[in-house]
Amino acid sequence: MNSRSHQSSSTSLPPLPRTRIQIGLAGMGTVGGGVVKMLEKNAALIFDRSHADIRIHSVLVRDPLKARAGQISPAQFVKTPQELIENQEINLIIEAMGGHGDPAYSLVKDSLKAGKAVITANKALLAHHGLELARIAEANNVPLYYEASVAGGIPIIKLVREGLGGNRISKILGIMNGTSNYILSTMEQSGAGFAEVLQQAQDFGYAESDPTLDIGGGDAAHKLALLTALCFGCAPDCAQITCGGIEHVTPEDIAIAAEFKCRIKLVVQAERLHDGRILQMVVPTLVPYDLPLAHVGGVLNGIYLRGDFVGSSFIEGRGAGAGPTASAILSDILDYAMLRGGVQQDVQQNHTSAHAAPPTFAPIRPVFGVGASRLTTGQTTGGLEWYGRHYIRLRVMDRPGVIADIAPILRDHLVSIESLIQRGQSEDDPVSIIILTHAVKGKNIADAVHKLAQIPAILQSPMVMPILDADDEG
Amino acid sequence: MNSRSHQSSSTSLPPLPRTRIQIGLAGMGTVGGGVVKMLEKNAALIFDRSHADIRIHSVLVRDPLKARAGQISPAQFVKTPQELIENQEINLIIEAMGGHGDPAYSLVKDSLKAGKAVITANKALLAHHGLELARIAEANNVPLYYEASVAGGIPIIKLVREGLGGNRISKILGIMNGTSNYILSTMEQSGAGFAEVLQQAQDFGYAESDPTLDIGGGDAAHKLALLTALCFGCAPDCAQITCGGIEHVTPEDIAIAAEFKCRIKLVVQAERLHDGRILQMVVPTLVPYDLPLAHVGGVLNGIYLRGDFVGSSFIEGRGAGAGPTASAILSDILDYAMLRGGVQQDVQQNHTSAHAAPPTFAPIRPVFGVGASRLTTGQTTGGLEWYGRHYIRLRVMDRPGVIADIAPILRDHLVSIESLIQRGQSEDDPVSIIILTHAVKGKNIADAVHKLAQIPAILQSPMVMPILDADDEG
Repeated sequence: MNSRSHQSSSTSLPPLPRTRIQIGLAGMGTVGGGVVKMLEKNAALIFDRSHADIRIHSVLVRDPLKARAGQISPAQFVKTPQELIENQEINLIIEAMGGHGDPAYSLVKDSLKAGKAVITANKALLAHHGLELARIAEANNVPLYYEASVAGGIPIIKLVREGLGGNRISKILGIMNGTSNYILSTMEQSGAGFAEVLQQAQDFGYAESDPTLDIGGGDAAHKLALLTALCFGCAPDCAQITCGGIEHVTPEDIAIAAEFKCRIKLVVQAERLHDGRILQMVVPTLVPYDLPLAHVGGVLNGIYLRGDFVGSSFIEGRGAGAGPTASAILSDILDYAMLRGGVQQDVQQNHTSAHAAPPTFAPIRPVFGVGASRLTTGQTTGGLEWYGRHYIRLRVMDRPGVIADIAPILRDHLVSIESLIQRGQSEDDPVSIIILTHAVKGKNIADAVHKLAQIPAILQSPMVMPILDADDEG
Repeated sequence: MNSRSHQSSSTSLPPLPRTRIQIGLAGMGTVGGGVVKMLEKNAALIFDRSHADIRIHSVLVRDPLKARAGQISPAQFVKTPQELIENQEINLIIEAMGGHGDPAYSLVKDSLKAGKAVITANKALLAHHGLELARIAEANNVPLYYEASVAGGIPIIKLVREGLGGNRISKILGIMNGTSNYILSTMEQSGAGFAEVLQQAQDFGYAESDPTLDIGGGDAAHKLALLTALCFGCAPDCAQITCGGIEHVTPEDIAIAAEFKCRIKLVVQAERLHDGRILQMVVPTLVPYDLPLAHVGGVLNGIYLRGDFVGSSFIEGRGAGAGPTASAILSDILDYAMLRGGVQQDVQQNHTSAHAAPPTFAPIRPVFGVGASRLTTGQTTGGLEWYGRHYIRLRVMDRPGVIADIAPILRDHLVSIESLIQRGQSEDDPVSIIILTHAVKGKNIADAVHKLAQIPAILQSPMVMPILDADDEG
């Protein structure tokens, strides 16, 4: 992470003043370790692109004795966040601890207040405290970067905030959780059930021992909250996201979806409704083969966006892991190097104390694209507002007349049936009835399903999934 | 394009100094008109993201009387590049004229020398003069932006230079010419021949009346030269690109490719060879259905990249047209607004004359990612170095023994046959022999084909296309 070896070969460079970036790295797990490795391996390239002298100054670890040193000398390990925050030599904090509470929350907040730039990979933190932290960053005129928090291998934050920055975005569709996408892809290939594939994924290290956040949609919802903020100018608000997991998706659902040329994916969606509100949802969804999202397999992530001038864009890449996450953090480091070159030639000169008054103006992009004071609140809504076709699976005792019980309820809620499939026939065992509806509002479906669940012959909670339009990405 | 109407609603903003950007727009065709429209329609959003007062100051047009005014007042039209270059109020030039010679070349060069920032959509200009213009921009410490020059709807310049900036890129594969992709897609769907579909495309306005640059691969080669420079740190060098067009692709080629689960696409490729040289080629290529590139249809563009930490990324979007191009130029304008906020609060204060000494340091990213003085030259090579499977179509008189003439030539050049297909049988009419080879170097194929062409029974120049590996994007 220092570029001295490279310096000797760069004598042809004009004598630019060197920007010195001293990093306080919090966490030395997969993410932190990846950053250290990338700074080391690509030091020459990174110097060429940044003209900055980038060093890991200190590393916060729980137990310095157990820490994997690698290129870090034992003297660089510290045990408390304060040792990073209060060190005047450190100008950039990289938070790679995770979790939306402390110590990550206080470390990020106090670092920003101390005038230090912060890079975080922590989607949970920003989904819960994004507005507050953006306000603090902007009030202290320091950048808060988070490229690694959403789809590490896809520079989507930069893409939305800068690359498509002049566009009014009307829609996001995405697959942003590699674990659940791996499980669904494997279920499709093997025909195995959810529990079995989850166990395999855990054995292979693709799923955590507590997989709740991944398979329940919570992790994807955190990421969606950040993307929604960037695309639609509203404060991150994961409480309003309709969130469903993949644990009730069955091999039968997958097989029937295939008959309709669809794959089941855990899809995140956000779109601007006609009344100006922003719909947000993360639920298992039928994706027609015609859409690129249907072909995002395994642990990959994919994101589709529609903007008023750019039209439709789709991007696919690895979502997580040491390499892609380090790649995203390096993008943030390079951004910071550019910023430092211009406005803060030397933090030690400008900041006589950690709480010195910040400069009054710097060309720092607002954290969520527009200033925190301009972000709207209370404008988001959930999946009841979604309009489109739906998939409903009912588990019923196969008695004559059950469809006669179902049909009037759907009719009363203005739910029109496009296809109805009843597989298997047995007087003793329950069978599945699958209904594909015409386009209708999610609220109508929810109300109808609530009534359906009261029919005695219907044995479980009905499974409901939206179906994307094949021309949704057209 | 001014944001006054929006200002009144932004009283809650902190009293930031406003950056004023005065644009000299050269060209008011599709591209220039799109920029004017986007600045107008999304003025409030653009102000929120830039805190800049962005105005079109003057517009260079060939004939002011004929110019489509739109939001531009007649007094803003000028007739000579000098009126943009020498105007002290203008700090940003947008070159939307096209062509690698004058007037575009001199306008860009002289604007940079005069200390003005430049945005260009002109891939031909940069492919031919990129190194010189980058040197001038960097010596004068002004930015030269060109997001719109490659795949307008895909912010690929920013993606490579910034989003993936810490990665060592090993490979690019792309479809970057919408016209030829439209023609190939339509040939596949309709079964019609090249000439007929080209005529249709011209009738619909998807192809220009002189389509040479598009269908011959020259336009895609210009774009590839820029991407290669960014990805591999070499000066743009389109002279070294192996370039082939789609005019000899037949419906038979398309049908046989489909039998092997491939689509024919005009694919650009660049990759770092083991000896450090950079291979560049643009030729019709067989793309297996398994690769996302195979599904980039119609006028869309798609680009695949492989980086050492990020792994594989794929991005798809619209390539050209008023909207996507304006979107890309707006991204550059927003970048410039950030830069201006920091280093050049007011060009008029700092630059007492247009040729005043520039500041010695500013956080401007080098034009091609690394400084112009660091770009390598003479390191690029062409398709003879490509290694992989190939498709060869020979047009022969169906005489007994012709395959006995062919086989030894292939063997002598170490070309191993994977499949050989002979369709049709007629003593009077020529028939096609299609050979799919095992992986071999392009040089061997070229030498073998040169010999094959000398066999009397072989009637036309053989058609040769590389075949991408299905795991090329793995």
